[in-house]
Amino acid sequence: MALYVYKFGGTSVGTVDKIQKVADKVKLAHDQGHKIVVVVSAMSGETNRLVDLAEQMQPRSDAREMDVLLSTGEQVTIALLSMALLERGCLARSYTGRQVPIVTDNSFTKARILSVDNTRLEADLEKGRIAVVAGFQGMTEYGCTTTLGRGGSDTTAVAIAASLKADECHIYTDVDGVYTTDPRIEPKARRLDKITFEEMLEMASLGSKVLQIRSVEFAGKYNVALRVLPSFEEGTGTLITYDEESNMEKALISGIAFNRDEAKLTITGVPDLPGIASKILTPIADKNIEVDMIIQNIASDRNTDFTFTVHRNDYEEAFAILQNTCDELGAKEVKGNDKIVKVSIVGVGMRSHAGIASTMFKALADESINIELIATSEIKISVVVYEKYLELAVRTLHAAFELDKVGT
Amino acid sequence: MALYVYKFGGTSVGTVDKIQKVADKVKLAHDQGHKIVVVVSAMSGETNRLVDLAEQMQPRSDAREMDVLLSTGEQVTIALLSMALLERGCLARSYTGRQVPIVTDNSFTKARILSVDNTRLEADLEKGRIAVVAGFQGMTEYGCTTTLGRGGSDTTAVAIAASLKADECHIYTDVDGVYTTDPRIEPKARRLDKITFEEMLEMASLGSKVLQIRSVEFAGKYNVALRVLPSFEEGTGTLITYDEESNMEKALISGIAFNRDEAKLTITGVPDLPGIASKILTPIADKNIEVDMIIQNIASDRNTDFTFTVHRNDYEEAFAILQNTCDELGAKEVKGNDKIVKVSIVGVGMRSHAGIASTMFKALADESINIELIATSEIKISVVVYEKYLELAVRTLHAAFELDKVGT
Repeated sequence: MALYVYKFGGTSVGTVDKIQKVADKVKLAHDQGHKIVVVVSAMSGETNRLVDLAEQMQPRSDAREMDVLLSTGEQVTIALLSMALLERGCLARSYTGRQVPIVTDNSFTKARILSVDNTRLEADLEKGRIAVVAGFQGMTEYGCTTTLGRGGSDTTAVAIAASLKADECHIYTDVDGVYTTDPRIEPKARRLDKITFEEMLEMASLGSKVLQIRSVEFAGKYNVALRVLPSFEEGTGTLITYDEESNMEKALISGIAFNRDEAKLTITGVPDLPGIASKILTPIADKNIEVDMIIQNIASDRNTDFTFTVHRNDYEEAFAILQNTCDELGAKEVKGNDKIVKVSIVGVGMRSHAGIASTMFKALADESINIELIATSEIKISVVVYEKYLELAVRTLHAAFELDKVGT
Repeated sequence: MALYVYKFGGTSVGTVDKIQKVADKVKLAHDQGHKIVVVVSAMSGETNRLVDLAEQMQPRSDAREMDVLLSTGEQVTIALLSMALLERGCLARSYTGRQVPIVTDNSFTKARILSVDNTRLEADLEKGRIAVVAGFQGMTEYGCTTTLGRGGSDTTAVAIAASLKADECHIYTDVDGVYTTDPRIEPKARRLDKITFEEMLEMASLGSKVLQIRSVEFAGKYNVALRVLPSFEEGTGTLITYDEESNMEKALISGIAFNRDEAKLTITGVPDLPGIASKILTPIADKNIEVDMIIQNIASDRNTDFTFTVHRNDYEEAFAILQNTCDELGAKEVKGNDKIVKVSIVGVGMRSHAGIASTMFKALADESINIELIATSEIKISVVVYEKYLELAVRTLHAAFELDKVGT
């Protein structure tokens, strides 16, 4: 008999019928003797309805009052799901964030959890009760209502799972797990049974459709076994865990991630002096433009070429700033390309295996895909290529590392 | 500069536009230097929407979860009104029932207020803030959410006014005050500037369209000056108060109340023995039938006639029960009439003036209206007449006591 925290998002509780189905699912697990805490989001569409009302009142809505407003969404769902469970003969009881209580800082609309008191939840579980908890919300030390921002319900579920030392935290969604890459690009993409937290974080570009990265970080920090699985279908989904041991036989590479909408900027002929990187990047950061990859090469004559990537939306603004910096520094010129993408191979296996990079580069070269930039971390190798090569590069790498084969 | 508690019901905050108008009204009073607490209900229609959702989940919905669900309605309104006030440059802050906190007993869906902590509200008022409080809700000592049942927002407003010792508690509604009688029956009916709590309670049949009787009792108990006035029109409405002194010159009678849908039952030839009333009424009470007027007359030969009135819906059931009692007691027969109504004159003035009853009976007799039953209390005289005389009786008494004339 295990203790599980289940989380159902807005689309999974979006209608009366779906809430009934969720109740059936929860009852099944409860009848098997498991202890269950269910975390739910607002019914899909409800948050938008409330935001729309707020904007009619106050176009730039007050953050404190916005949280009072938005937190009603989950409160409706916990009551309805509890009723559905009671109707099925299960003992159930609802909790808002403040009733748990989940205490947060006072950053309204994007609060961070400071503590979870599990006294009442534990007492309920001991009595055989199902606790139904509102995701996405908490309260400050002084009793103001807060919400946790995007993906907040996942974070609530993980925080409660950590606090209760749950066996697993199940995130139910409309996909059936985490894949080796996007199946829309590579139909042979395969659902992973297991992935590590670090890999999941590096797979952000894929994973964000499944799980909020913030909750993965949180789960990693508190060692909560997270499982992503489908709300209304059979399937064991994908387990996200620290456990690398059972993966000894596993593939070197877990998946192929990619980012569309990248752009790169290069400033050439920069005098190679200490502090030059800061002089180039500070004006960019001052405009709140996020920089992803950064590459600096020594060129000839004590000059250097400096390249970085930004989101494509920020390309023009960054180009103008960089042109200005170029003039100030007496550098040679600014070059750019906003038709590039980033493709990455991710896997904890590469820590202990050499030759991964050369396999990657050779596979791309065999398809005549030119690599513009390379960046590496301990468990990820990323290359920037022209946008037109995105699909080919993903499929090539998927095949090169045999990701379509189970257990390789 | 005064301290006011304003209460706006569901229809007064039923749309975004109406909430904007309420904000304008509150800002006006605040700008004049008054301290304002606003109590609001759920937007009209919202409670029905939520009840409908609940019934789809659990036809006989769990009361605890129903309160979790329903309390979201007012929470939406407090956030929206606070935003509207902030947008107008007023300092404003919302409070749910539990944030005040308003502590209730644990009778879910019909809880009673045990205490109101005004510490936070007072601190806000001192800082020039408008406090926007969710009506209709509170929490138990153990932190469960409760609602106060029908008319709960009025009760919240009165409880807060009592706690803060407010100068007046304003109940804004879609009528412009309390009338001498129903204007649909007597077009000359006149709005009363002032009425006492006791009169208001005796006028229940009229007043219930304006104010929940429970909140009037509460206001009377804690001596809160209540004023009923129109949400979106000019007008000073009707003040409900203990203050009888300024009414020395006032009319003897404040208004004409009436109850339709009455029925009367008589059991004749009952042996006049101790405990006979209990023997007759206990079987009626056992079926949860409410009895209104009770009249017992000594008849001849140590026999008595016993008459009482019930709601017309209960007439047939009561008749059958009484027939049974008649057989058991060896009484003569059961007679009944379900086409009767009750018409009452109400006024604290009758305490100190004789002859009121005879004026009433003479006026009715002049119109050949036969009186079936009479019952009196300290500030009310009620007569039962045939249903067909209702309108004539109301208009006759309205004229007889000159209620259309101001200050009589």
